[in-house]
Amino acid sequence: MSTTVIILAAGKGTRMRSLLPKVLQPLAGRPLLAHVIETAKQLQAQDIITIFGHGGTFVKETFATEKMTWVEQTEQLGTGHAVQMVLPVLATSGTSLILYGDVPLVSAATLQRLLDASIPTGIGMITLNVADPTGYGRIVRHHDKIQAIVEHKDASLEQQRIQEINTGIYCVSNQKLHEWLPHLSNKNAQGEYYLTDIVAMAVADGLEVASIQPEMAFEVEGVNDRVQLAALERAYQSQQALHFMREGVTFADPNRFDLRGSLKVGRDVRIDTNVIIEGDCELGDGVEIGTGCILKNTKIAAHTKVQPYSIFDQAIVGENNLIGPFARLRPGSILADQVHIGNFVEVKNSMLAQGVKANHFTYLGDAIVGKDTNIGAGTITCNYDGVHKHKTEIGEAAFIGSNSALVAPIKVGHGATVAAGSVITRDVADHALAIGRAIQVEKPNYQRPQKSK
Amino acid sequence: MSTTVIILAAGKGTRMRSLLPKVLQPLAGRPLLAHVIETAKQLQAQDIITIFGHGGTFVKETFATEKMTWVEQTEQLGTGHAVQMVLPVLATSGTSLILYGDVPLVSAATLQRLLDASIPTGIGMITLNVADPTGYGRIVRHHDKIQAIVEHKDASLEQQRIQEINTGIYCVSNQKLHEWLPHLSNKNAQGEYYLTDIVAMAVADGLEVASIQPEMAFEVEGVNDRVQLAALERAYQSQQALHFMREGVTFADPNRFDLRGSLKVGRDVRIDTNVIIEGDCELGDGVEIGTGCILKNTKIAAHTKVQPYSIFDQAIVGENNLIGPFARLRPGSILADQVHIGNFVEVKNSMLAQGVKANHFTYLGDAIVGKDTNIGAGTITCNYDGVHKHKTEIGEAAFIGSNSALVAPIKVGHGATVAAGSVITRDVADHALAIGRAIQVEKPNYQRPQKSK
Amino acid sequence: MSTTVIILAAGKGTRMRSLLPKVLQPLAGRPLLAHVIETAKQLQAQDIITIFGHGGTFVKETFATEKMTWVEQTEQLGTGHAVQMVLPVLATSGTSLILYGDVPLVSAATLQRLLDASIPTGIGMITLNVADPTGYGRIVRHHDKIQAIVEHKDASLEQQRIQEINTGIYCVSNQKLHEWLPHLSNKNAQGEYYLTDIVAMAVADGLEVASIQPEMAFEVEGVNDRVQLAALERAYQSQQALHFMREGVTFADPNRFDLRGSLKVGRDVRIDTNVIIEGDCELGDGVEIGTGCILKNTKIAAHTKVQPYSIFDQAIVGENNLIGPFARLRPGSILADQVHIGNFVEVKNSMLAQGVKANHFTYLGDAIVGKDTNIGAGTITCNYDGVHKHKTEIGEAAFIGSNSALVAPIKVGHGATVAAGSVITRDVADHALAIGRAIQVEKPNYQRPQKSK
Repeated sequence: MSTTVIILAAGKGTRMRSLLPKVLQPLAGRPLLAHVIETAKQLQAQDIITIFGHGGTFVKETFATEKMTWVEQTEQLGTGHAVQMVLPVLATSGTSLILYGDVPLVSAATLQRLLDASIPTGIGMITLNVADPTGYGRIVRHHDKIQAIVEHKDASLEQQRIQEINTGIYCVSNQKLHEWLPHLSNKNAQGEYYLTDIVAMAVADGLEVASIQPEMAFEVEGVNDRVQLAALERAYQSQQALHFMREGVTFADPNRFDLRGSLKVGRDVRIDTNVIIEGDCELGDGVEIGTGCILKNTKIAAHTKVQPYSIFDQAIVGENNLIGPFARLRPGSILADQVHIGNFVEVKNSMLAQGVKANHFTYLGDAIVGKDTNIGAGTITCNYDGVHKHKTEIGEAAFIGSNSALVAPIKVGHGATVAAGSVITRDVADHALAIGRAIQVEKPNYQRPQKSK
Repeated sequence: MSTTVIILAAGKGTRMRSLLPKVLQPLAGRPLLAHVIETAKQLQAQDIITIFGHGGTFVKETFATEKMTWVEQTEQLGTGHAVQMVLPVLATSGTSLILYGDVPLVSAATLQRLLDASIPTGIGMITLNVADPTGYGRIVRHHDKIQAIVEHKDASLEQQRIQEINTGIYCVSNQKLHEWLPHLSNKNAQGEYYLTDIVAMAVADGLEVASIQPEMAFEVEGVNDRVQLAALERAYQSQQALHFMREGVTFADPNRFDLRGSLKVGRDVRIDTNVIIEGDCELGDGVEIGTGCILKNTKIAAHTKVQPYSIFDQAIVGENNLIGPFARLRPGSILADQVHIGNFVEVKNSMLAQGVKANHFTYLGDAIVGKDTNIGAGTITCNYDGVHKHKTEIGEAAFIGSNSALVAPIKVGHGATVAAGSVITRDVADHALAIGRAIQVEKPNYQRPQKSK
Repeated sequence: MSTTVIILAAGKGTRMRSLLPKVLQPLAGRPLLAHVIETAKQLQAQDIITIFGHGGTFVKETFATEKMTWVEQTEQLGTGHAVQMVLPVLATSGTSLILYGDVPLVSAATLQRLLDASIPTGIGMITLNVADPTGYGRIVRHHDKIQAIVEHKDASLEQQRIQEINTGIYCVSNQKLHEWLPHLSNKNAQGEYYLTDIVAMAVADGLEVASIQPEMAFEVEGVNDRVQLAALERAYQSQQALHFMREGVTFADPNRFDLRGSLKVGRDVRIDTNVIIEGDCELGDGVEIGTGCILKNTKIAAHTKVQPYSIFDQAIVGENNLIGPFARLRPGSILADQVHIGNFVEVKNSMLAQGVKANHFTYLGDAIVGKDTNIGAGTITCNYDGVHKHKTEIGEAAFIGSNSALVAPIKVGHGATVAAGSVITRDVADHALAIGRAIQVEKPNYQRPQKSK
């Protein structure tokens, strides 16, 4: 039976106090709505229909590459009204899940349970038992069967004691949606069309309203302000850490880990405090990531150790490297095995062959460095002439003395040596020594500037 | 009606195990007592009278610029004795709030409620309901009216069950303080004069003792050791984060944010984990602060992005800058709009005009850099001759090649170029190319030092 | 009476999903088993007998320097079987504590209480009252005396309500162990020999089974997966922070502190957020450690201030130093008093005398720097010729100009000056000025590369 996912995403989110539409606020680095769309995809929904309103164009553009249907709600006349907008494009058979662009963390597993429970009866919903139900719609049951949803302000004293609440997430047969939604009424205090009313219609039709509860309460929590956004961010991150601990990752502190993207891990990966992972990353067996490191779209092979406060972006790192602390690998850094990158070293768009060492204060930009070459402290590839970037090619087993400047485009041959402090502007032959430094002169008894009295 | 704030600040704080008087221990970067004085000012207290004792001179000096009255308590004979010391300087009309230098977080709003409740009756106090009242003075009520405060050790079994406790914070008419305090007795186990006894005096006089409870329990918590200090520090920081989330700031983790001073924020500010704000800072609309950044007395204009692990102190930063990671702006760094400062770059006492780029390993000290100038990797302004600091002036659209040393005082003209690896000791004319580097020589088939066998 | 500590350490720990034997998984930087051994030593155990199995050789090698007895359990036939292996080497008099290599945090104080309670009766155990006892063995008592341990699956409904559970930690007279253990039976569902059965034997013998409860629940918690490992890591770290707060250390956030080793502190030490201490460290009076610093096997004397994101390893630092931010002291860094080390500075195997300043972008490797010498920004000691490391010696009150390269082996004399941007390859005499830089030439109206259209 085919499933449609309907996502209500038209809300303005005034309490966010933001220029960004609420459903585009990021959680774990992705818009709230992206989480819901991702979940819909996991359910292999036949169609994803998103109802947009505030900031609509921007919202649509953000998801331009997604295969989904967009329906506009020009006026904000309630949740029922929102879903009414969908009817013209909604199939007449199959089942719809009704989700919310600002309820980002409902899991596919929970929704699958909702689907399984709801399809036999034609309607189902997610409810939640809470300690303090104040303000929420209560689930009124008779002989365990859902009879009605009573809003807090309409609830009798007895009903106010009910701790099972409405989450707003429904699963309804498309046939019933076509049948019920046109009959919603806005004759209520707010003058809005409430989706909730379909429960009463189902009961009136003699249908049993199925219900399930989520595994975790945060799955049905919505984001109305930054406080709730932060709470869900932490709930999400806790879940991620838990997942990876079960995969065998050791965290020094699972509460100080942030994953904003995807991560694949090998065996015995160790992640110290305050590490941030962004984009799509992979860590091989035995990889260790030091405190405060930030990895983005980076792949690190087995047994490489990344020391604290290193930042990688679009880097590919081989096995048994030793990198950091305070190393920065910028996009296009490709490191083979047994490479050593030390403190205050920046690498960009460069390939470093096996065994290369650049242990201190070095900038390697647009460079190719051969096997076993040693780059001395303070070496800088002068790759930019103000307009163009030029390449530096260094051969195998070369030795670049400290504090050298290699003015690109330039080639330094295999086994070549550059004397410390040299400025190298012409290619260096294989096995040659290149020196580009001034003769040292000395003035005895030099009087340095003195402090004036 | 005029309000006096009386602050008891004479305690030694033995359990702090510190050379610093307890009320000077910092919370959120300011002495405990400073928080109480700040709150007193928010209440527009007519006078702030602080009772000092241990470390008194140092305490007074710390607050030398504050308009307040200091009263010494040379012997530590109890809270009642402390307030007795105030009587000679206390007005006979008006009302006094009695606060504590080591209870730093009571809010002005709570104290205003206490004032409003107490003024009609002449005496009021803050009480607190706690789960475990063991050790605290219990509030004994009859028909809801406060009858007495019974110390834990004097409490009957029934009284021990009372969960409403005395916080020690009172609001009393000055007239009554003048009337009651001289009659305090030290005929008790400790031989001390207890301020608490005024409650019994009020009841004996037929006065109703008003009471309120604080919004948050931490408002009435005191600091006796570093454990309590840390707990209040975190309570304070949580409140700050909550405040800024409601203002529209997105925190990646509100539990990893520290504000030690004041912060003004524009719309849609994003603050990643482990950011520390010190002194007075301002962040414009859309500013993003990366993980681990530290900002002190710094102002950042709209849409500037500060990448991780950047440290700013007394910097003024324009719009749309891109700064960091690992950038350090020291005092006097003034950056115009569209400036780029990259990794391992230090700026001190320098003005960088619009569009300046210094992307790697650069020290700009005492420099003025013109519009659109590019500073190559490894550039160092040699501003210090061992005694004096000298200025470096670089014109507009200049290009400083990598690994150059600019020996100040020096001027590099508009549109000038400095060749990579140069040491520049004389001024460079507009549009000139300056080169200060040795000729490169090459020795073929050079034999590097070999490992001895 | 002599005490033997028996440690069960043969488990595989499948749920850790690791190549490392479970008891070698690190907690606070040391293997789980190391914590138990350390506790055994605090109890001055006469002998420590560890039962190994999985990964046994590797486990034994890890503790090769410890004076302890190793007993192999080749088959995993239950806890009773494990302790049976010990009998051949177990004294016939004295008392044994039976502990677990994967229950790392039981305190010596708790075990001492267990010893004190158990020795009079011949057997005792640690029990724990928990809110949810599901799955645990329940302690069945009659008139407060332990009658039996009933496994969850064998418990009656009434017994299932018992909240006092078995922790598995026992204290038994060696005589009784020799007497009871041979009679253990494996006639149960699992076909294993259970140590638990000795409780029934003791009751049958008419002995009273003594019991105590631990001060903290985490003391008896075991590690079966990374989630439990992380939970115990945090429990341990919280305890450490608490301990140091009571010693007078101020933490900005005790939940963001990690100690992986030992720490000695003076008075009024301040530790900001996210500091990590490894190995054996000492901090003198008034030392301040900034956010994000990592100290390993380092000793810092009084009143030194370490600014954020500084990393020290095997460094000895004098009084009143100002170091960082972004400073790295590598092994063998010895700094006298009043030394200043600034941002992006690396020191390795070097001695810096009193008053030395190296404030920016400097690498000092294998160097000796005399009193009051100033090292300019960008100075690099070129200490490595590709094979050997060479020494740099700089005298007192010398001045090394910025961006200089000192090619070791080299000596710069007292009061000598090195001009900025120099490459120094020959020794510099006392009070001399050494210059090693090219003559600056200028080409007017230079046309830089242009953007092609």
